[in-house]
Amino acid sequence: MRLDEDAFLAALIAGLPTSDELLIPPGDDCAAIAWGPDEWMLIAVDQVAADVHYHGRQAPDPTPPELAGRKLLARNLSDIAAMGGRPRFALLAIAAAADCSREWADAFASGVNELAVATGTLMIGGDLARGGSDVASLTILGSVAPDRLLRRNAVKAGDRIFVTGSFGGSLASGHHLTFEPRLAEGRWLAGRGIRSGIDVSDGLLKDLERLCHASGVGASLDLEAVPRRCLGGEPVGIAEALLGGEDYELIVSVPEAMAETIVPQWPFATPLTPVGRFVARQDSMTPVHDRHGEELRRRFGTSFNHFA
Amino acid sequence: MRLDEDAFLAALIAGLPTSDELLIPPGDDCAAIAWGPDEWMLIAVDQVAADVHYHGRQAPDPTPPELAGRKLLARNLSDIAAMGGRPRFALLAIAAAADCSREWADAFASGVNELAVATGTLMIGGDLARGGSDVASLTILGSVAPDRLLRRNAVKAGDRIFVTGSFGGSLASGHHLTFEPRLAEGRWLAGRGIRSGIDVSDGLLKDLERLCHASGVGASLDLEAVPRRCLGGEPVGIAEALLGGEDYELIVSVPEAMAETIVPQWPFATPLTPVGRFVARQDSMTPVHDRHGEELRRRFGTSFNHFA
Repeated sequence: MRLDEDAFLAALIAGLPTSDELLIPPGDDCAAIAWGPDEWMLIAVDQVAADVHYHGRQAPDPTPPELAGRKLLARNLSDIAAMGGRPRFALLAIAAAADCSREWADAFASGVNELAVATGTLMIGGDLARGGSDVASLTILGSVAPDRLLRRNAVKAGDRIFVTGSFGGSLASGHHLTFEPRLAEGRWLAGRGIRSGIDVSDGLLKDLERLCHASGVGASLDLEAVPRRCLGGEPVGIAEALLGGEDYELIVSVPEAMAETIVPQWPFATPLTPVGRFVARQDSMTPVHDRHGEELRRRFGTSFNHFA
Repeated sequence: MRLDEDAFLAALIAGLPTSDELLIPPGDDCAAIAWGPDEWMLIAVDQVAADVHYHGRQAPDPTPPELAGRKLLARNLSDIAAMGGRPRFALLAIAAAADCSREWADAFASGVNELAVATGTLMIGGDLARGGSDVASLTILGSVAPDRLLRRNAVKAGDRIFVTGSFGGSLASGHHLTFEPRLAEGRWLAGRGIRSGIDVSDGLLKDLERLCHASGVGASLDLEAVPRRCLGGEPVGIAEALLGGEDYELIVSVPEAMAETIVPQWPFATPLTPVGRFVARQDSMTPVHDRHGEELRRRFGTSFNHFA
């Protein structure tokens, strides 16, 4: 099976009725519905499966269940961060294989709970069922003021591309289990007037492409400027930084007028780095090029985003 | 692993901060948070797993994926019905084993979608991931006016016990795949002043016990009055009717003053049947007795609720 989530989601939604109540339809990092008078509710769901997103109990080097649970919530929080939102509530569903102990399930849930408490997310429901293998899903509800919202579709040609943090080596370094979702960073950017962004779960190139497609623009990426994670004292290769995935950093579009001031004003330890510029849509098959106009997808091939 | 969902949920919630924003905490059919000025949002999550809740693709007699998907949404709708609510939005997450075709996943989703359209539920998000086996979860968001709400904790001793539909034989008859969630029935009952109810997913006895525990009462069940499903022209045995599960009917508590008028006024084809009376809490270990005072749990043993 070709697991093309974008195509699946498109098919899931196709032909379904829509509604004025759905303020942001599926296809952004979160959907949104009306909540309070000046507040929208952001909603998303994400999953982790044993031996896909973490090493299961039977693996030679099993992932501690607390870290697997933490990862599940953190992935969802990253989607809230990408829209400038604040996490509010979450629901956890666990399907557990026959060899799963109650202790394992409790430890998994405690990893979820600890990060929930740290981020002000209230756990409001759960389900535990028998399954053929371990799979867990989490639904996150967040809130955002509609005038402080990051969307995927609001990039303008001429905006600069900025990224938080560094890229590549997420699995080898354990970053995919311990990363901090960029919640405060996303809210700060939304509060400064930034209007478009996405989080990087499937690789910098793939998610930059998604941002371009949603906004109808292209991108010129400065490969030398892309911050790369160091492993054993050496930065990862550029292909790994572009395609590795599980970075959970933010890509945002910064209007030219703010490009010089945003880094000096940036109050976080997390790096914020300019890595290129959004450009008018090109006639090429893929929207992201290097500074010399070479299509990066052609040069680097397709991304990989599954835990090996 | 002993899959005691009630104990798991209790552990999941224990020690977590709560909030005034959480109007109904986990432990009822749905949690509730504030939404509009006169509206609460009901939220629940439920799952189906291959060869647990339906026959998977490798089974001798695989369940059509459309029916498996339909069941997933219908289970969640039954939780909304049990609180007198109206379904509004839903999110679907599918973890698919390596042998799962895109056609299978699309057919599963189409089973969800068809029932969503029929019940006015808007699909607003989804996730598709690789898993070790097929597991799907769905989060439902509903709405209810706080003065037209069914809770588990509002039964009064002396209230009559009424049930919708009939019980037992759900798996053998296919009812568990094709049942109609009692949405209109639940809203009608809530609109007539009924204040307490639960849906029957784990067996009439088990869910009647839950209702008793939540309200601090006991129950005297009239075994002869329990409506039993017919299979091959014969009603199922009383043990099957009490323990079988997957009935997705409602149990409600009806104040004595309404007991004579509610059936004549009942506008639905679904039967509504009086089956006993809630009584003051007993000193016994289990809260449900027959008319002669015998503890039903002692006589009939523990329930089974997994698809064999």
